[in-house]
Amino acid sequence: MAAGQQQLSVASFFFFFFSGVLTFPLGPENKSGHVCGYESCHVTKHNMLNVHLVPHTHDDVGWLKTVDQYYYGDRNDIQHAGVQYILDSVVDQLLKNPDRRFIYVETAFFFRWWKQQSSGVQQTVTQLVNQGRLEFVNGGWCMSDEATTHYSAVIDQMTLGLRFLNETFGSCGRPRVAWHIDPFGHAREHASMFAQMGYDGFFFGRLDYQDRVRRMLAKEQELLWRASDSLTPPAADLFTGILPNGYNPPEGFCWDQSCDDPPIRDDPDLEDYNVDEVVRRFLDTANDQATVYKTNHIIMTMGSDFQYENANLWYKNLDKLIHHVNARQGNGSKVHLLYSTPSCYLQELHRANLTWALKTDDFFPYADSAHDFWTGFFTSRPALKRYERVSNSNLQTCNQLEVLGGPASRKGPYGEGESQTMKEAMAVAQHHDAVSGTEKQHVANDYARRLATGWQHCQVVVSNTLAALSRSSAERIYCDNLNISVCPLTASSKQFSVSVYNPLARPVTWPVRLPVNGESYSVSDAKGKAVDCQVVPVSRATREVRKNRGHAVNELVFQVQAPPLGYTTYSVSLLQNGPPPAPPGPALQQPSRTSICCVRVLQFLRVTFDPDTGLLSSLSNLETNQSIKLTQNFYWYNASDGNNSESNQMSGAYIFRPNSSTPFIISRMAKTETVQTSVVQEVRQWFSPWASQVVRLYTDSRALELEWTVGPVPIDDSLGKEVITRLDTSIKTSGLFYTDSNGREVLQRRKDFRPTWNLKQSEPIAGNYYPINSRAFIKDDVDQLTVVTDRSQGGGSIQNGSLEIMLHRRLLYDDVRGVGEPLNETSNIFPQGLVVRGRLLLSLERPPAAADTHRPLAQEVVLQPMLTFTDGALSPDTRLEFSGLQAALPPAVHLLTLTQWDSDSVLLRLEHQFQIWESEVNSRPVTVNLQKLFSTLEVVGVSELNLSANQWKDEMKRYDWTPQTDKKPPLLKTFEDPSTWEVTLRPMEIRTFLLRVHLR
Amino acid sequence: MAAGQQQLSVASFFFFFFSGVLTFPLGPENKSGHVCGYESCHVTKHNMLNVHLVPHTHDDVGWLKTVDQYYYGDRNDIQHAGVQYILDSVVDQLLKNPDRRFIYVETAFFFRWWKQQSSGVQQTVTQLVNQGRLEFVNGGWCMSDEATTHYSAVIDQMTLGLRFLNETFGSCGRPRVAWHIDPFGHAREHASMFAQMGYDGFFFGRLDYQDRVRRMLAKEQELLWRASDSLTPPAADLFTGILPNGYNPPEGFCWDQSCDDPPIRDDPDLEDYNVDEVVRRFLDTANDQATVYKTNHIIMTMGSDFQYENANLWYKNLDKLIHHVNARQGNGSKVHLLYSTPSCYLQELHRANLTWALKTDDFFPYADSAHDFWTGFFTSRPALKRYERVSNSNLQTCNQLEVLGGPASRKGPYGEGESQTMKEAMAVAQHHDAVSGTEKQHVANDYARRLATGWQHCQVVVSNTLAALSRSSAERIYCDNLNISVCPLTASSKQFSVSVYNPLARPVTWPVRLPVNGESYSVSDAKGKAVDCQVVPVSRATREVRKNRGHAVNELVFQVQAPPLGYTTYSVSLLQNGPPPAPPGPALQQPSRTSICCVRVLQFLRVTFDPDTGLLSSLSNLETNQSIKLTQNFYWYNASDGNNSESNQMSGAYIFRPNSSTPFIISRMAKTETVQTSVVQEVRQWFSPWASQVVRLYTDSRALELEWTVGPVPIDDSLGKEVITRLDTSIKTSGLFYTDSNGREVLQRRKDFRPTWNLKQSEPIAGNYYPINSRAFIKDDVDQLTVVTDRSQGGGSIQNGSLEIMLHRRLLYDDVRGVGEPLNETSNIFPQGLVVRGRLLLSLERPPAAADTHRPLAQEVVLQPMLTFTDGALSPDTRLEFSGLQAALPPAVHLLTLTQWDSDSVLLRLEHQFQIWESEVNSRPVTVNLQKLFSTLEVVGVSELNLSANQWKDEMKRYDWTPQTDKKPPLLKTFEDPSTWEVTLRPMEIRTFLLRVHLR
Repeated sequence: MAAGQQQLSVASFFFFFFSGVLTFPLGPENKSGHVCGYESCHVTKHNMLNVHLVPHTHDDVGWLKTVDQYYYGDRNDIQHAGVQYILDSVVDQLLKNPDRRFIYVETAFFFRWWKQQSSGVQQTVTQLVNQGRLEFVNGGWCMSDEATTHYSAVIDQMTLGLRFLNETFGSCGRPRVAWHIDPFGHAREHASMFAQMGYDGFFFGRLDYQDRVRRMLAKEQELLWRASDSLTPPAADLFTGILPNGYNPPEGFCWDQSCDDPPIRDDPDLEDYNVDEVVRRFLDTANDQATVYKTNHIIMTMGSDFQYENANLWYKNLDKLIHHVNARQGNGSKVHLLYSTPSCYLQELHRANLTWALKTDDFFPYADSAHDFWTGFFTSRPALKRYERVSNSNLQTCNQLEVLGGPASRKGPYGEGESQTMKEAMAVAQHHDAVSGTEKQHVANDYARRLATGWQHCQVVVSNTLAALSRSSAERIYCDNLNISVCPLTASSKQFSVSVYNPLARPVTWPVRLPVNGESYSVSDAKGKAVDCQVVPVSRATREVRKNRGHAVNELVFQVQAPPLGYTTYSVSLLQNGPPPAPPGPALQQPSRTSICCVRVLQFLRVTFDPDTGLLSSLSNLETNQSIKLTQNFYWYNASDGNNSESNQMSGAYIFRPNSSTPFIISRMAKTETVQTSVVQEVRQWFSPWASQVVRLYTDSRALELEWTVGPVPIDDSLGKEVITRLDTSIKTSGLFYTDSNGREVLQRRKDFRPTWNLKQSEPIAGNYYPINSRAFIKDDVDQLTVVTDRSQGGGSIQNGSLEIMLHRRLLYDDVRGVGEPLNETSNIFPQGLVVRGRLLLSLERPPAAADTHRPLAQEVVLQPMLTFTDGALSPDTRLEFSGLQAALPPAVHLLTLTQWDSDSVLLRLEHQFQIWESEVNSRPVTVNLQKLFSTLEVVGVSELNLSANQWKDEMKRYDWTPQTDKKPPLLKTFEDPSTWEVTLRPMEIRTFLLRVHLR
Repeated sequence: MAAGQQQLSVASFFFFFFSGVLTFPLGPENKSGHVCGYESCHVTKHNMLNVHLVPHTHDDVGWLKTVDQYYYGDRNDIQHAGVQYILDSVVDQLLKNPDRRFIYVETAFFFRWWKQQSSGVQQTVTQLVNQGRLEFVNGGWCMSDEATTHYSAVIDQMTLGLRFLNETFGSCGRPRVAWHIDPFGHAREHASMFAQMGYDGFFFGRLDYQDRVRRMLAKEQELLWRASDSLTPPAADLFTGILPNGYNPPEGFCWDQSCDDPPIRDDPDLEDYNVDEVVRRFLDTANDQATVYKTNHIIMTMGSDFQYENANLWYKNLDKLIHHVNARQGNGSKVHLLYSTPSCYLQELHRANLTWALKTDDFFPYADSAHDFWTGFFTSRPALKRYERVSNSNLQTCNQLEVLGGPASRKGPYGEGESQTMKEAMAVAQHHDAVSGTEKQHVANDYARRLATGWQHCQVVVSNTLAALSRSSAERIYCDNLNISVCPLTASSKQFSVSVYNPLARPVTWPVRLPVNGESYSVSDAKGKAVDCQVVPVSRATREVRKNRGHAVNELVFQVQAPPLGYTTYSVSLLQNGPPPAPPGPALQQPSRTSICCVRVLQFLRVTFDPDTGLLSSLSNLETNQSIKLTQNFYWYNASDGNNSESNQMSGAYIFRPNSSTPFIISRMAKTETVQTSVVQEVRQWFSPWASQVVRLYTDSRALELEWTVGPVPIDDSLGKEVITRLDTSIKTSGLFYTDSNGREVLQRRKDFRPTWNLKQSEPIAGNYYPINSRAFIKDDVDQLTVVTDRSQGGGSIQNGSLEIMLHRRLLYDDVRGVGEPLNETSNIFPQGLVVRGRLLLSLERPPAAADTHRPLAQEVVLQPMLTFTDGALSPDTRLEFSGLQAALPPAVHLLTLTQWDSDSVLLRLEHQFQIWESEVNSRPVTVNLQKLFSTLEVVGVSELNLSANQWKDEMKRYDWTPQTDKKPPLLKTFEDPSTWEVTLRPMEIRTFLLRVHLR
């Protein structure tokens, strides 16, 4: 039995320290006699070429149809696909021949199906799983996108899916391999997470066409991916296999109902007996494939999108193929076919005991041809991308408050609430055609609707817990549209309170901007202390964007300070009686030396503007005494319409292909207006009717905020537009820039360069775009300018010292990758085209210390404070402030997950949020005492889990793989947890705990 | 238990006279405990509207793909269809819920599938059949075409299919209803046959749109069809139901994988729960349908072409539909859904005990809209139609000789032969997209190839038997291309013999035309007597048609006389030594009074030609002393290309739609050449490079032969052409003419008239076309001109005294009925377009005696002598003549079937071939003694069967139905069989016997 083959012993588990009796099993009792996983693989022949036929279906959790339309097989006029029938059919067919195998991937679908089955079918399926005939791979709720997802949501969705499998099937339901056959490029952080989730290997289908060719020649399509520069190998090492045909069967061997390949006609009495011809063709195919892989095992993915709805077609012909090809062994053939699974194939690769090429970079960007770079989807559907990110923040708050509120959170004065709906909605949204923006419009609407519904259920939890903690059941109002100054309560009320819940484990200072109609307000904090607040006029851009959804003329601005994992409450009162008549907005000013404030000096920053253009001209950090030239403006690339001599590829939802490498400038100069108060200073820039920006500086902030508003992007010139903002600086970047991977570790990017092959660059812009999930930076020896984004976007550094970020895309053509719609977003509210608003936060720091700023800054954007409002005066016994922690966590530690697991246990993830090289101060191990963590929860037991919480950490044994050339990692000191209750986190480490807790 | 419900007791059967022990069962032992047929129907609710949901698939035995491509699911690029998977899937799904039902129709497919199943699957299927969950309907090898088939081949194909079902499943496998849901119009003779095959009812889908409307309003979509004017009711009475939606499900309720209707979404947790909406829609549909039918039962066909390949989709949704609709009964709904079959529905109609409208005409022509008459396929693919007819003749000869030769026929000096391949090929060719000509070109080629292959196997049987009977194993040559004067043996040999086998039960005189290169030959008959023979030059048309396939310059013509069910042998010797140089063909002559033979007088006929035009001008019968004016010429209709203000319907494989009602004449006059010998006189008419004719008169014939040759039909003018010949006579037809139904009973046709509804004629030509299977005639009180055809064709009588027959069609557009190809036949041999040759035989008689001529004449064309050739001199002990009968049968009796059934029994069908009103002489009962029938077979036992040979005649109990208005049939004298061995045949009666025989 090879390492990793033992089954998860779920009934007993290891307490790494004793602290009471933990009795919750991870899944059903393990039954004796189960032969699943590696043990259930068919035998292979050591002296032959073994062809692993892997029947599979690829079921998008929404794409051309919504997830439920796919489940039911509704709207088959759009695409023939019905997952309920796939699972029905596969189960039937597996029962017909015990040799047959099937893998299933997307738990979002399997879960829907399972709960509709009779107990008889459920028992049958369980038996198939226990015999390894039905095997789950990947097993997350969906197959997440890798370019536009945040690690927090990815870990959640994997946990959700794997938990269902574990609780339903136990160890035999635990996937052994990760399987990302369709995502459009592959993130290193995903590989790192998969390694930490205990997967023995990883398979995918898409990589750059040049990379593919080189790897085929070098037999490096199977490799070892070292996916972290901070974690000690092999913690983030992941064996990675690149599948031979994407995820499709070899040409001519597709026997799904959706294919037209000839079936095996083996009845000599009927016409066109073709067994000999099929066998010959197959042997040719297999032998060809074997030449570009290392071992005497090859894998063939026998399936594709939504295939196996009628599994009989596939299996009947595969049975015949196996029979007839293997029958040739009697005549000396050296090819052996078998039904297999990715894990069975992986087992054979592991048994081969070879060394494998080591890879430390990632697989972005993905190009399937010279002019076909899949870098548009990094930005596609920017509004959905932001809504997904906000929803994640809301869900984490909901999860935390469900824990802190206990049972009172789920049933209370605001009714019954739960977080499951939102967890599922967020999990679905991670799909590689969801947050990626590559789905049809009605499907995008469905994702958003699901998130909104999830949030409605979560709001009840949040309100109930806040009611319990504050002892006030006064009505709580949520204002989800503060970004466009819409909140009817604050706009009309003379007295209200705002409660600010902070989901971070550190106190935060946060600017609050509330739409109001009054001119003057008083604000007091939880201690009754007056807070500096200012009223500024609502900007023209906001008034135009919000249309009739709100009519407040002013915004009340003040800074709040919220405790870790807790809330505080501010009281607001109008100082005059009744709202005054709306003042006219300040007139826009032409840039001029007299009208524009050329220099803004704040506590930490100095910003200058060019008085001739109204554009930014420099940025200085007053603490570090550093300064750079900084010009920023807005541009658009003319999206290719496919009429091009080099290629007919259009820009579309997936593909970014500018018609020219030179973007058009929207306006050389900005009309500006200025706002200057003690709390905030703003320069409002107006570039065109569809592009504006507020350069905003809060007095006590170390970051400069650029709030951009883009849209409706005009298309009356019949030109698709891809709108960017570009920062041009004096930093000497030497062709380098840096982007994060899924919001965590940062990777270096170099223009017109790939670390693992000799790039022939054919798209000078699109071929230099990379995903930016939470931040990007440029630096030289002395200056680092970091841009923290509020959503995933694409960007690049085309010129030295320059960083551009794509903000919005409006396209007129489909890019022929299946979605079948141009990315041309409109809505009821925006019939002329979607308007999108977002924020970039800029920090200028010395490189060795830059992370000390951008790491917490980015977390504040990801997990933003949650505001709730109560009209009128609060009752005197209201508890105005609360923290769920005994103390703030150290700066390096991020509380990634706190969520109810079952009735008396919670799942906790603590994360070291610095890379090992990032910070002199923070890139050190740090220790946390779990028993002293919570203020209101008594931790009576703890056990550590793998990252996806479906295995006890100490039982997680993974295959060991040997790299060809082991780049020795820096010698790291090994830390032992200093005491039984204390856990140590090393750079970039995430540790996952199941805590048994009592409410104190 | 209603009449007809008892099961076939196959283990015991009735001997209507004792003549030995007949022990062959018709099928497997009937098992006790089987509940199939009517007994297995679900209960209905008498106070509700019962909706019979009938899951079914319609599996064309070839159409867009060949029958084997359909079976395997090959060429799914053409059409997604794979019958093997349909049967796999349906069986699986029936097992999942015992309430489910399925009907299967086409035994050609079921047979292919069955033989590939394991015994376990076979047992399972048998159980499903025995429980009535899988029910066979129709059950022939295919669902035959009704317009272009000959009854002989239809009975054979039904017998073939039903025999398989009977032998495989016994009584539970016997279909209770006939099911012709797709054929394009319905023949009365088919209904008559179905009645005699024991079906309780008949359902179909297509009828004239005007007829449909009238029947809906009158609730006459269910009716009693009295399908013979000769057979005593209810022998040919057939309850007939017209299905509500063709054979499709009601709109919005198609849940096949090929459909896009919304599935039932019944999980309230998923989006778009639609149960209420679906139930409401369904109730509306059911109630609407109920208004146009008579009882509180309605039928819905839940399936369509090649559906149920993934039966789960259908059944899962039907289960839900039934559940949710019936659940409404708790709220007062009066609609009850049930899984059902056509027989279960029929049982309820029978129980309703109503009277039903009586119909005595047929359902031709079929129009689905005002300009969409499906009358083109009556003629489409005339070469295939002829080849099918010739093949039937060959098969009957093969069958007879298999019986007469006994085991020696199947294994002998010529190897191993069998008739099964040809039986199956012929059965497949009866399909309503086979001989109909409505298949794709490659499928038509496949049908022809199958017939050719079948004939190869049959040739061995024929040769072996002739060898046994003649005691000569000399090599036998078959010349299948004598119609174009190709036979290498006769063309080159100086001495050879020709053996003429006559499959009719009467002696025949038959002209033989053999390609030769000599000038002078001697021919002697079996008794050594010299026979008058003549050498005539091969015609220019033949030389052009045959191209390089033959080079004979002359034809040797003589009359042969062959004994009943036997052969005779003629010896032929060249009188000069070696073939002489080819003489130049006689020069064509312009019509002129001097060059054309104006009058041809023969023994029985006088024919005159117009010396100015070269066209026929009169025809006289010298025996009856009658004479008519007769002009005959060739024309073409310009096929509609769809560019028409009234309709955009094109002429195509199905549809005949001339652009104008006036056809174009090919040539007003014919160039002619004449041949005049003592055996035959010919006037060879040359109308154009693509239209010619030989008017041929054999000295002792009562029929005038018109051998037409048409093609390649030119299309360089981009006009599709539908070529007709038209006979214009002095007969006063008063708008009437007559056509046969499937080669048997004759129906009266009236221009612009339908017997059962008030016709609004919208296509003056196409709407007056009817199928002509073997003959058509026009008559008045004194003259009847009958045209016997050599294949099925379409024709009409547009003007008084006129009869036109469509010969060939070459079209440039598809007619949008699915075949997707224009009917534009070319081949390797005819790359410029197919050339077709055929014969019309004209007889002029007094109406009361006309059938005495045309009945035997038509049978001679249907069952033509089979010629075999032997080179050189025959050995002296060769038996030159043989008859299988002790004596010729009486003129009224046709030996329809003589074929081996199993090792010691043969199937015999004797037929009275006259209608009751047709002949003063022959329309009388006639008696045959079975024991005195055969010369070499001793009949030791006999039992009578139903027409399809799947039930003992005396056990065939059919439902009784009461017509609304019983047109009392003429009182017929009832004849008893005069003796135990003698059987009496009444007009149009076919009696089917299983004989136990010994070779004497």
